Amino acid sequence: MSQDETFMRRAIAGARRGWGATHPNPLVGAVIVEAGEIVAEGYHAKAGEPHAEIMALRALGRRPQAGATLYVTLEPCCTHGRTPPCTAAIIEAGIRHVVVGATDPNPEHAGKGYGLLRAAGVEVTEGVLARECADLNLIFNHWITTGQPLFAAKSGVTLDGKVATRTGDSKWITGAEARADGHAWRRYFPAIAVGAGTVRADNPRLTARVGGVEWCPWRFVFDGLLRTVTDKAMPAVYTDEFRERTIVVTTPHGGLGYVRKLNAMGVKAWVLGANTPKVNFQDFRTRCAQEGITGVFFEGGAQLLSELLQARELDYLFTYHAPVLFADDKSKSILRGLRTETLANAIRLEQVRHEVLGDDALMRGFVRYPEKMYVDEATFGRKDYG
Amino acid sequence: MSQDETFMRRAIAGARRGWGATHPNPLVGAVIVEAGEIVAEGYHAKAGEPHAEIMALRALGRRPQAGATLYVTLEPCCTHGRTPPCTAAIIEAGIRHVVVGATDPNPEHAGKGYGLLRAAGVEVTEGVLARECADLNLIFNHWITTGQPLFAAKSGVTLDGKVATRTGDSKWITGAEARADGHAWRRYFPAIAVGAGTVRADNPRLTARVGGVEWCPWRFVFDGLLRTVTDKAMPAVYTDEFRERTIVVTTPHGGLGYVRKLNAMGVKAWVLGANTPKVNFQDFRTRCAQEGITGVFFEGGAQLLSELLQARELDYLFTYHAPVLFADDKSKSILRGLRTETLANAIRLEQVRHEVLGDDALMRGFVRYPEKMYVDEATFGRKDYG
Repeated sequence: MSQDETFMRRAIAGARRGWGATHPNPLVGAVIVEAGEIVAEGYHAKAGEPHAEIMALRALGRRPQAGATLYVTLEPCCTHGRTPPCTAAIIEAGIRHVVVGATDPNPEHAGKGYGLLRAAGVEVTEGVLARECADLNLIFNHWITTGQPLFAAKSGVTLDGKVATRTGDSKWITGAEARADGHAWRRYFPAIAVGAGTVRADNPRLTARVGGVEWCPWRFVFDGLLRTVTDKAMPAVYTDEFRERTIVVTTPHGGLGYVRKLNAMGVKAWVLGANTPKVNFQDFRTRCAQEGITGVFFEGGAQLLSELLQARELDYLFTYHAPVLFADDKSKSILRGLRTETLANAIRLEQVRHEVLGDDALMRGFVRYPEKMYVDEATFGRKDYG
Repeated sequence: MSQDETFMRRAIAGARRGWGATHPNPLVGAVIVEAGEIVAEGYHAKAGEPHAEIMALRALGRRPQAGATLYVTLEPCCTHGRTPPCTAAIIEAGIRHVVVGATDPNPEHAGKGYGLLRAAGVEVTEGVLARECADLNLIFNHWITTGQPLFAAKSGVTLDGKVATRTGDSKWITGAEARADGHAWRRYFPAIAVGAGTVRADNPRLTARVGGVEWCPWRFVFDGLLRTVTDKAMPAVYTDEFRERTIVVTTPHGGLGYVRKLNAMGVKAWVLGANTPKVNFQDFRTRCAQEGITGVFFEGGAQLLSELLQARELDYLFTYHAPVLFADDKSKSILRGLRTETLANAIRLEQVRHEVLGDDALMRGFVRYPEKMYVDEATFGRKDYG
C-alpha cells in the first residue's frame, strides 16, 4: 500500500463516522499530513455543518506548515452551498498539495474543484482509492446524478435463493455477522419500508441498532387498504416513542377515517392516487424526492419487493447468501413475478461488490433491467401487500 | 505477515504445482531457508515419486548449512510407504529446525512425525498457515480419514439459486473467471461424473483445459438404461482419443449387448445391481474406493445432483453465484427433491470457504445433512437420469 493510500484509508475511516447522518450530503473525511505524520483529521457530520476539509483545518488550530498535504475522500466543493466553498478555504490556508479520492459525481461540478485549486498553484493528485471513496456515497451519488431517491432491497437467502421454508420458517437463515451488517446498512438509509403483511406478522420496530444505540429512520408502511389500522392492539410503529417517524403509504381505498385516526396518534399518512389498492411506486418516488428523502431501504415482505422489481423501480439489491440449502421447490423465493425466458431477458447487477461476513457472503449492486422484461401479472393479483 | 508465513506461502505455491496429479497422495510443498534466503524448493509431483522434503533436499544438492530451516506444508511422514520416511531423511540431512503447516490428517500418524523429529533434537514449529495448508488437500484428507472418495458437485447459479431459465437457457450465467475456476477444480479431481441427459443434450468432452493443456479425468456417465449408446452418432466421450478414460455406470436394465458394444469401442462399463434403472450411489462409492478413485466431481445434470443429495451421498458443494436474477418461479433450481419444513431440517455447509471471481462469488463447503431429512420421492420418480 502506498503512503497516499494509507492516509486515504484513514480519511475513509473518518468519513464513516458520519454514516447515515449526512443526508442529503455525502460522507467525506479529510486528514492533514505534515512531514509524513497525520496532524489533524476531520469529517462531515451532518448537513449544514462544516465540510470535512474545514473540520480538519479547524482541528489543526494553526496554519499548516509549508509542505503540508491535505487528503480528502471527495473532490473539494467549489460552490457556495450552505457553507462557503472548500477550495477557497484550502487555498487561503496555504495548503499546496491536495490528494483526492473520488471526483464530484455532479456532472456540473466534476473537476471544477481540481481546476480552481490548480489555478491557484495547488498540486492536485486525483483518484487515490477512487472506488472505495465513491462507494462511501451510494445514496448521494445516485441522488446527485439522477435527482431521485435510491430504492434498495435487502434479503438474507439460502445458497439456493430462498428466504423461508415451505412452512415459513426464516429465523435465521443468515448468521450474526450478516445480520449486523444488514443493520449497519439500515442505519445508512434515511428511510426504511415494509409491507402491511410484515407489520401484521412480525410487528417490527424497524429501528437500527448500531453500537448499542437505537436510531429510527423514516419508517414507511405500505398499506393500500390500511389493514394495519385496527381497533385492537396497534402495531409498535404507530405507538412507540418514534411514531412521528412513521409514514403510512396508502391509497384512496384505505379510508379517510383511518387516515385521521393515524394522524391523531401522531403518525403521518401519504395518500397516493391509485386505481388498485396498491400504491404507484412512481408516485411514491416523486413524493420522496419532494420531501428530500434520498434513499429507502425496502426490507420486506417478499410481495412488496417483487412488485417493486416488476415495476422496474428497484434500484439496488443487497443479497446475503448463507451456506444453507433447502432444495425444496415449495420453499419461498424473495423475488418473484417475472417470466424470464432467456439470459438476455434476465436482470443483472452492476458495480457489484462482495463481502464475506462469517460464513455468509454479501453480494450487492445496482439493478440493471433488460430492455424486454416480462411481468407475470397473475403472480400477486390486485390485492394489497401480503 | 510473519517471515514464517512468507516462506510457508512459497511452499504452498510449490505444492500447487502438483494440482490434481498426486492422487491418492496429498499436495505438499517444501522450501529450505538458510540465513533468511530460500536456497531450495521441492514439491510432490506424483504418487510413487519422492516427497516434497526429499525433492527440496535433492534440489539443494549439498548438505544444508547449520541453522537451515525446512518449511513444509504437511507434517513429514514417519512411515515407510512407497518411499522411506521423510523424518529420517530430514534428521540425516542435519536439519535442526522444521516449520510445518498442517498436521497429518491420518489419526494413526498425526503428530508422530513431530515426535520423531523432536526426539532427534529437531526444533519443530507447528501450525503455520495450518488452514491454508490443509485446504490444499480436500480430497486426500477426506480419503485418509474416512476411506471414502469425496463426492462433490459444482454449479453456477443466479443470485436466486437458478441454473437455467424456464426455457432452459443457461449459457452463461457465470462469468469467465468463475468458469475458469470451475475448470481448475475439475482438474483437481481424479474423476468427473454426468448424467445421460447431459451427454445427450450437450455432448461434452469433460476434459479440463488449464494453462492451454487438455487433460482428461476418469469420465463417469450415469446411464442406467444405456440410452447414450445408439446406432447413430455416438457421444464424444465414447469415441474421442480419451475414450479409455470413460466409464459408463449402468444397471442390469441397460442390456448386456450394449455393454459389449461399449467394451468393443474401448469404453469401460460398471454394471451395478439395482431394482430400478438408477444406480445405487453406495455401490458406486464402494466401487470407486476399490478402484482407488479418491474423488468425483459431479457436474450435472440437475437430476443426478439432486438424487445424490436425496441419497445423502453428496459430500461437498461448490456454488458459483452470479449477479443475475431470474425472479421466475418456473426457472430451474440445481438442487431439488427435499421437503424442508424448518431450518433445523435444512442442509448446511461446513468449513465454508469464499472466493470472489470477477463479479461472481464461489461458496464451497462440506455438506452436513440434518438428522431428519425428508425426501420428496415423487420429484424424479423411477426414471433414468434426465
